[in-house]
Amino acid sequence: MIGKGNDTFTMTHGFVSLVGAGPGHPDLLTVRAVDRLRNADLVLYDALVAPEVVALAEGAQRFCVGKRAGRKSVQQDTILRVMMRAAKRGRRVVRLKCGDPYVLGRGAEEALALRTAGIPFEVVQGVTTAVAAPAAAGIPVTHRGLASGFVVVSGHDEKSFLPVLGSLTPDTLTVVVLMGLSNRQAIATCLLKYGWQPDTPAAVIFAASTPRERTWTGSLTDLRNARLDDSDPGTIVVGSVVNLHNAALGNETTPVAVTAKGKS
Amino acid sequence: MIGKGNDTFTMTHGFVSLVGAGPGHPDLLTVRAVDRLRNADLVLYDALVAPEVVALAEGAQRFCVGKRAGRKSVQQDTILRVMMRAAKRGRRVVRLKCGDPYVLGRGAEEALALRTAGIPFEVVQGVTTAVAAPAAAGIPVTHRGLASGFVVVSGHDEKSFLPVLGSLTPDTLTVVVLMGLSNRQAIATCLLKYGWQPDTPAAVIFAASTPRERTWTGSLTDLRNARLDDSDPGTIVVGSVVNLHNAALGNETTPVAVTAKGKS
Repeated sequence: MIGKGNDTFTMTHGFVSLVGAGPGHPDLLTVRAVDRLRNADLVLYDALVAPEVVALAEGAQRFCVGKRAGRKSVQQDTILRVMMRAAKRGRRVVRLKCGDPYVLGRGAEEALALRTAGIPFEVVQGVTTAVAAPAAAGIPVTHRGLASGFVVVSGHDEKSFLPVLGSLTPDTLTVVVLMGLSNRQAIATCLLKYGWQPDTPAAVIFAASTPRERTWTGSLTDLRNARLDDSDPGTIVVGSVVNLHNAALGNETTPVAVTAKGKS
Repeated sequence: MIGKGNDTFTMTHGFVSLVGAGPGHPDLLTVRAVDRLRNADLVLYDALVAPEVVALAEGAQRFCVGKRAGRKSVQQDTILRVMMRAAKRGRRVVRLKCGDPYVLGRGAEEALALRTAGIPFEVVQGVTTAVAAPAAAGIPVTHRGLASGFVVVSGHDEKSFLPVLGSLTPDTLTVVVLMGLSNRQAIATCLLKYGWQPDTPAAVIFAASTPRERTWTGSLTDLRNARLDDSDPGTIVVGSVVNLHNAALGNETTPVAVTAKGKS
């Protein structure tokens, strides 16, 4: 195994690295993530990881195992089986996940399975989309006087987000929802039902840190009713900090309007 | 200014980069952060940024502007004044902050001041300590069946954390408190008062991602009562996911006991 700080660590054969790909741009990978990709024999990557990031693993076989592009996703147990078999055969495996491996996305489940199977592994944290996507739109998740904290929740299904969103006292902190774009009506409706003000500012950052990046802003009511193009992934942010979007604190100075299309 | 994705960006003179230093180890810096440090003329860094990270800015003047080591911290308006004056004189300035610049720590305030003064700047997101410190101790902030979300809050003063912690329905999500070690009694007391179970698992990760890293675990009641050495910074985690610490999902296999000393 590897020591504290990883100073003397060299990736050995028969090893799995659970690597965070960050929010999208290759420059937002960590130095360690780049090293692991460059030295990998096999990369299993989520569908939303940017091609430029996957391309860094020049010497590796690379397989997309996420669900996107109309194809069926690879089953979780298949991913684990492939990963473990390759490691047991002495290969250096990188499991590349969007953002940070331990922020939603089942990274800890994969780590637990590897630990149980006795396969040596490491976790390489990444820049989480939960913070970087809002930041790209000039929205800090915390700001003195507006929010001294933030909550991050999966918007993937109601079982995930309803208990969390329903447990928050309205307007006390910033809410960030990942993987929730297609459930935005249910998410907004839930917050409104639990007493959040209809005019609470809301934003959706689409395709953060990619050339297609764009930001929609409106109220919580607008979020419930808006017709948004959800062909790209989107990060939902709700709270007063969204108003800072207009102060242009991000690296973007020209917010791009979202084309009205897709389901409402 | 700089374009989307930053592909063609070269750091010009008279420019400020607000850079996230990540959780500690230089390998957990982003590629962009390393680039900005290497090309900086002036670096103003928080006291808790690791010396190995600051050292990457070989060609720069480097000043610690945080509060630590018994010295008075530099006032916020002094930091801003120095930063702006240097940028106006054509220097490439890096403002280096622990973790991510927009997760607590006043990064957005600095961005706002720069925007108001018309100084060109960028934000380089970093790996946030809120996720990386628990992960280093093998604690994922989310895990299927245990927590589908997490909240991050400043433990710096009661004004910051009481409204947020008091607004959560008990045991619905993982709580991460940054900069709250010296207020751990008040933090635990607040959660207990609002109905969190006394046996809710809690952890403190000290000096994450440094050679001094160590983890304390116990119950919420223990967190209130424990005598902990708080000479190092610590990240507090409360919630069921803390139990995964024993499954050793991090890069550490030997949790180190915390010496009982310091204030109770």
